[in-house]
Amino acid sequence: MSRLLYTLSAEDGLSRDLLAATDYQAGRMELRNFPDGESYVRILDDVKGRDVAILCQLHRPDTKVLPLLLLADTLHDLGASKVGLIAPYLSYMRQDKRFREGEGVSSHYFARLISQHLDWLIAVDPHLHRIHALDEVYTVPAVALTAVEPIAHWLREHVEKPLVIGPDSESEQWAARVGEAAGCPWEVLSKQRFGDRDVRVSVPHVDQYRDHTPVLVDDIISTGKTMLQAASHLHEAGLQGTICIGVHGIFADGALEEMRAAGVRVVTSNSIPDDSNEIDLAPLIARELASGPCLECD
Amino acid sequence: MSRLLYTLSAEDGLSRDLLAATDYQAGRMELRNFPDGESYVRILDDVKGRDVAILCQLHRPDTKVLPLLLLADTLHDLGASKVGLIAPYLSYMRQDKRFREGEGVSSHYFARLISQHLDWLIAVDPHLHRIHALDEVYTVPAVALTAVEPIAHWLREHVEKPLVIGPDSESEQWAARVGEAAGCPWEVLSKQRFGDRDVRVSVPHVDQYRDHTPVLVDDIISTGKTMLQAASHLHEAGLQGTICIGVHGIFADGALEEMRAAGVRVVTSNSIPDDSNEIDLAPLIARELASGPCLECD
Repeated sequence: MSRLLYTLSAEDGLSRDLLAATDYQAGRMELRNFPDGESYVRILDDVKGRDVAILCQLHRPDTKVLPLLLLADTLHDLGASKVGLIAPYLSYMRQDKRFREGEGVSSHYFARLISQHLDWLIAVDPHLHRIHALDEVYTVPAVALTAVEPIAHWLREHVEKPLVIGPDSESEQWAARVGEAAGCPWEVLSKQRFGDRDVRVSVPHVDQYRDHTPVLVDDIISTGKTMLQAASHLHEAGLQGTICIGVHGIFADGALEEMRAAGVRVVTSNSIPDDSNEIDLAPLIARELASGPCLECD
Repeated sequence: MSRLLYTLSAEDGLSRDLLAATDYQAGRMELRNFPDGESYVRILDDVKGRDVAILCQLHRPDTKVLPLLLLADTLHDLGASKVGLIAPYLSYMRQDKRFREGEGVSSHYFARLISQHLDWLIAVDPHLHRIHALDEVYTVPAVALTAVEPIAHWLREHVEKPLVIGPDSESEQWAARVGEAAGCPWEVLSKQRFGDRDVRVSVPHVDQYRDHTPVLVDDIISTGKTMLQAASHLHEAGLQGTICIGVHGIFADGALEEMRAAGVRVVTSNSIPDDSNEIDLAPLIARELASGPCLECD
């Protein structure tokens, strides 16, 4: 019996591409709200003994998590063998320590919650900082894929002479990996402090790159401020036509519109559905589904 | 050290009344959303070794449950001794069996989820049907209080000659208990079938009650249809000025406005904040907090 993929998001572009690229069949379900706002779940397939996966795009997660847990519990209750989660954008990765007294460490709590209800997890470029690997907090098999190769593929197809640029020192590793995968130069914006209020940002070796297209890369674009400041420094340094690539375009508070209004081109992956999606994660995730934890934990 | 009460709802009337009627002090916290929609929790009290309770009004529950779980996890993580939940309206009690193949039994899953994150539970008139007692599904101490006495108190104060009426045969027990507590007569609307399409609803002994005020009582008012049909039968039987009392006014899809437009007076408890709240649950819950599971499981 083939494996089944249930899709929790309203937008099903990535789901359709995954179904086309894998041996999964589309799971059929009825998921709706009672008049009082509670969720109703009904599975329309015979899942007994079958491996199933749930695709859930976990941006703005708070409304999605209870339906996700109820769906996973229902599938287990109906006898599904393994119930995995494909969360291309994995939420609750940033509050990974108690920065101030009294704070909750939601990264840990969220990982425990998901681990209690699902049998495996696949995420793309989760925000790993103080947590160095997902298995430090997830107790079920959890794979962090990276969009470095899909981004490099997009660059090779769409940009003639890219210069990959990390907007700040934290993104150095990231810029290096994308630049190397795309076979193009990469740099990181560097800050020099000449006094309390005199901080200058410069583009190293800018004179070599006058004929290149500057491409800022980062894992998450949230408010867009980091990207916009970096784009402004590139403009001052004489580089034109900046492209901003984020794996995950969260775009809080109209950030996408603000970035476009400032004249930069914004490109994201389809981890979070949006009209800036140009980088397709389906082949990356499909490869993992053919060989990954969803098979190993059988 | 006194016990602490954290309130998750925006509306804090019931919380204020509970604080006034118990030895609990108001817990202080910062609960907000990051720009990307994730919840941030910070506790501003020293909770180490202390008993705490969370008041969460769980109507329209899907957006509230993740913040509730993160808050409970944070309190445990910071060393709180016991973390209990006061849910005057307890959600997810109605899907208590698999009515159709493939359905999730959300009552069971929700009870397990809450039991994993909280140490005790107090609810008021949870919708117990096929589940006969909360401890059949909740694995932590769980108390079901009843609003029968607060309703009877309200009737004694506000209605001169009440006739308590159950709108259908399911509500017989309920009408009996309220009528007996209020020291007034009670009846249940009875259906008689005279043919396929000829079903007549009658008010037993209606002639005895011409000078009484009909008071329909039920646990939940959701769409309001049951109440409105019953009120219409009372009107046909010649009883005027119907009052509809529901413990929990969920009022899906403008039901409260519809009921008022039909000329009935709607009265609910403050389990779900609303301008129909006239029955105060604070004394009932306060008594339980002075003696109940929140103390026993120490």
